[in-house]
Amino acid sequence: MNLTQASNSELNELYLTLKKQYEDYCCKGLKLDMSRGKPGADQLDLAEEMLTVLSKNEQMLSREIDTRNYGLLTGIVECRELFSEIFEVPVKNVIAGGNSSLTMMYDTMMRLWVFGAPDGKRPWCAEKKVKWLCPVPGYDRHFSICQQLGMEMIPVPMTENGPDMDIVEALAADESVKGIWCVPKYSNPQGYVYSDECVRRLAHMNTGAADFRIFWDNAYVVHHLTEERPVLLNIYDECAAAGTLNRVIMFTSTSKVTYPGAGVAAMAASDENVEWSKKIMTVQGIGPDKVNQLRHCMFFPDINAIEEHMKKHAILLKPKFDAVADILERELGGTGAGSWLAPKGGYFISFDSYPGCAKRIHKLCADAGVILTNAGATYPYGIDPEDRNIRIAPSLPPVSELTAAMEVFCICAKLAAVEKILGV
Amino acid sequence: MNLTQASNSELNELYLTLKKQYEDYCCKGLKLDMSRGKPGADQLDLAEEMLTVLSKNEQMLSREIDTRNYGLLTGIVECRELFSEIFEVPVKNVIAGGNSSLTMMYDTMMRLWVFGAPDGKRPWCAEKKVKWLCPVPGYDRHFSICQQLGMEMIPVPMTENGPDMDIVEALAADESVKGIWCVPKYSNPQGYVYSDECVRRLAHMNTGAADFRIFWDNAYVVHHLTEERPVLLNIYDECAAAGTLNRVIMFTSTSKVTYPGAGVAAMAASDENVEWSKKIMTVQGIGPDKVNQLRHCMFFPDINAIEEHMKKHAILLKPKFDAVADILERELGGTGAGSWLAPKGGYFISFDSYPGCAKRIHKLCADAGVILTNAGATYPYGIDPEDRNIRIAPSLPPVSELTAAMEVFCICAKLAAVEKILGV
Repeated sequence: MNLTQASNSELNELYLTLKKQYEDYCCKGLKLDMSRGKPGADQLDLAEEMLTVLSKNEQMLSREIDTRNYGLLTGIVECRELFSEIFEVPVKNVIAGGNSSLTMMYDTMMRLWVFGAPDGKRPWCAEKKVKWLCPVPGYDRHFSICQQLGMEMIPVPMTENGPDMDIVEALAADESVKGIWCVPKYSNPQGYVYSDECVRRLAHMNTGAADFRIFWDNAYVVHHLTEERPVLLNIYDECAAAGTLNRVIMFTSTSKVTYPGAGVAAMAASDENVEWSKKIMTVQGIGPDKVNQLRHCMFFPDINAIEEHMKKHAILLKPKFDAVADILERELGGTGAGSWLAPKGGYFISFDSYPGCAKRIHKLCADAGVILTNAGATYPYGIDPEDRNIRIAPSLPPVSELTAAMEVFCICAKLAAVEKILGV
Repeated sequence: MNLTQASNSELNELYLTLKKQYEDYCCKGLKLDMSRGKPGADQLDLAEEMLTVLSKNEQMLSREIDTRNYGLLTGIVECRELFSEIFEVPVKNVIAGGNSSLTMMYDTMMRLWVFGAPDGKRPWCAEKKVKWLCPVPGYDRHFSICQQLGMEMIPVPMTENGPDMDIVEALAADESVKGIWCVPKYSNPQGYVYSDECVRRLAHMNTGAADFRIFWDNAYVVHHLTEERPVLLNIYDECAAAGTLNRVIMFTSTSKVTYPGAGVAAMAASDENVEWSKKIMTVQGIGPDKVNQLRHCMFFPDINAIEEHMKKHAILLKPKFDAVADILERELGGTGAGSWLAPKGGYFISFDSYPGCAKRIHKLCADAGVILTNAGATYPYGIDPEDRNIRIAPSLPPVSELTAAMEVFCICAKLAAVEKILGV
């Protein structure tokens, strides 16, 4: 039944049925979490051998250094080489860091805020106003960084080819607009891959701010769910061609390759950006955990080893994404209660409810023991103007739990839509 | 021969002899490093078993969480308990972090700078002037943090009981003085332990700034060289008694217990400081490397295990400190060319040259292939007003190399003194 075309009596009847179904689920005492993009335990198990690749004192030397001792601010060269392959950027432009790319992004933003960019006039905190472009829906932790620093976030609509570049170009002409968040491959939450044209326009566009920065969070660079290997144009090369090499700072990590929180993160940037980062970083610390870097490099001698490893993740993840899509199609297909995307990589399914229902669905689910990412979380300041978008994270629960959780979700989505249409 | 009482002809003769000895060493092509407090490879070898204490998937659960996955901003409880024993502070007041206490100090200072203290009027960057007390000689990396932020560092003389508290109290009355660096046990570089009176006065003194902070860097809390166990008064308890619990933030790490750069760092502070830290930290990252925390907690079930482990370090380190002291006594005893301290813990020997000779000694040593910590490094802005203090770090080189390096050092110390006295 298409809810938007149903009669009032049909809707009233459905409302009672859905309410009964919902209450039955509420009694079950479910405790299911689809809120964050956490790998499942079976995925974490895949890295078991990494735990013991370094087991003896005599294995602890990297090419340059005893990894157990102090030193090497930018990480061991083996690790920088590995990330150089992933970023497709020269080794000298890669900094291998600690356990979190989010922290590298935060710290980079803080450096811009407190000390200013190498090509900027002043620290950003000394600017009258700092604005930042936020493709939406997007990643809440990105937005939190801007919000903590009091930047003004400007939402930019995402398209299946990336952020709407007509709008980005128009906004970037404002000199108080200092940058943009990008998750260019399997975007969070939609799973879109930026088109060649989008990447080119980002690299070549005129910006009002000389120190405009693209935070290129390539979190899902090797996180495929299918056999397809969408090619993302190399923005570093494009910026080089455009003479805007300081514009882009690239980030990634092995958080969803080996262990979240115990992986290795990295960034890549122009010579000038790297020198600037190092000059400030050298006061913040002596160096990253090189033992864990070496452990990763022993486990992954090259990018092919990572690719092979990611196929094992896909084998575990794909059935979960398929289960979600199947249940959504079965329960919501043709109802008008929502639409969704079936991504080819990444960690999320982006769901758009009937307008004005996302918060209600989140609440209904929570009361039934199913935890979703907060409605609105995919928008700056937590404000989804249409109250529609919900990020579904299917990776953590086993398929059986996921199925139960999605059944609850679909009942809630329909119930919220019926409530909204009926005005109850 | 006491150089300060020698005749000119004696000095001239000695000058030629020393110069000849020095030139002989220069020809040897030495390459010896006593510049940083790095553990020797034999010390790092002591932690070999820690590499494999976690070897199986089923071992990766802490009491609260799968350590491999995201979460737990303040670290796993096992690790917080271990540091709670070390700090002698309740578990709830402990944050177990990443691989570097220096980074925790830097990040804490940055939070005060950008966001302000929970009990402060405004972010420190918005103050007209921020001053910071620096006991001297002290740790160069502490000073670098203040310098990078543009704080005004005020040197305070160290005594064998801690910083000169008459001076500290007088300076702290100025409301623009926001805090002080302290290495309270086996201070860097002298190896002094703060007296009970000093700790009490730090906790109880009146400060002009309501948001005055003591950065209590207890880096060498378990790093004994002898059988003595000097008791450091618990400043946390003293601050509690004084009603100044927000004043102190404690830091330490296992960098020189297990691995520098691949250890675990921690901080401890009041409820209010911890809540304030967490609120800002939660935007900077999702959590520390919990796998490495669990690895440490398996290797060290409690503080006794750490104490036992540190005895093994002392067995390796003590002969190095003894060798340095023996050579200094043999070559410089009674010459007036310098004085030094024989510490009972920590990582350094603090050497004071004949006045105005430290830079010259550093240069002479460097030219002969012996790298020392930069002269002046133990003072804010790298300026040692008397140009005397040199921090000797004997831990890294094997004893044979250390002996060679110290022989060069002593020749350089005498040569520089003779040059200075003769005015050549």
